[in-house]
Amino acid sequence: MSNPSPAEPRSRARRRSDTEYRLTHDEDLWVATASDDGMPYLVPLSFHWDGEALLLSTLADSPTGRNLAANHGIRLGLGGTRDVYMIDGEVEVLKIDALPQEQGDRFVAHTGFDPRAYDAAYSWFRILPRRIQAWRESNEIAGREVMRDGRWLA
Amino acid sequence: MSNPSPAEPRSRARRRSDTEYRLTHDEDLWVATASDDGMPYLVPLSFHWDGEALLLSTLADSPTGRNLAANHGIRLGLGGTRDVYMIDGEVEVLKIDALPQEQGDRFVAHTGFDPRAYDAAYSWFRILPRRIQAWRESNEIAGREVMRDGRWLA
Repeated sequence: MSNPSPAEPRSRARRRSDTEYRLTHDEDLWVATASDDGMPYLVPLSFHWDGEALLLSTLADSPTGRNLAANHGIRLGLGGTRDVYMIDGEVEVLKIDALPQEQGDRFVAHTGFDPRAYDAAYSWFRILPRRIQAWRESNEIAGREVMRDGRWLA
Repeated sequence: MSNPSPAEPRSRARRRSDTEYRLTHDEDLWVATASDDGMPYLVPLSFHWDGEALLLSTLADSPTGRNLAANHGIRLGLGGTRDVYMIDGEVEVLKIDALPQEQGDRFVAHTGFDPRAYDAAYSWFRILPRRIQAWRESNEIAGREVMRDGRWLA
């Protein structure tokens, strides 16, 4: 890390509020998945956060769509490389017509993209976070966990 | 994509020069790997570009270090979610004392981090790009390939 005097490390409470701010306001994040034969895949996707889970959508037959359908797990990188919110979670795959209309509408309002307009080529992916880590520079590596086992840490 | 009128798509030549600019000037990127049991991993790391390959370093016994040593491949996300430089490449793993001194020195000068100061806990990872894609908004999905089979496209 090249910054010789980074800012003071944030408290856990501040990191949690920063996490929730970015979950609420950001439009895209980095989505890492792995294939049946163990190759990593990475792509940025739009998302919507409803306060409990992240909703993504991509082509069912894309690498990310196939990897998630095969239940190989997911790891999400929100923010930037010096303002990291790293999310591990459980993936629920939903057919494009299986999501309640109003949930899809909220995704569209936030992202400007409506995957329902493309027949069944797209799927929904609902990610329930289990672990979230928040750090900026190396002095924030300690205390970076803000959610564990699906619960925000006090 | 929520931007209703993105900028005109860049030419391939411009995308290549933007790619080389970010390779040369950026300090960090997102590193996606996969484990023996097919779970994705993602973390931001510092890097140095020597005009031919990217040099990374991380703890040999970290998830990324273990995944790369097991030869499961790598995918690198440089830039941001709306200014993407996606790199697939071949990984060479080097013990921390196996890299020529001046190459390590250039890494340290660029990143401010010297993994050689920690005995043999760290390894070097040299990534030779095979494919690079560059895009910003959805209107740049077409023509996003700037390197294929290790060669810059004209």
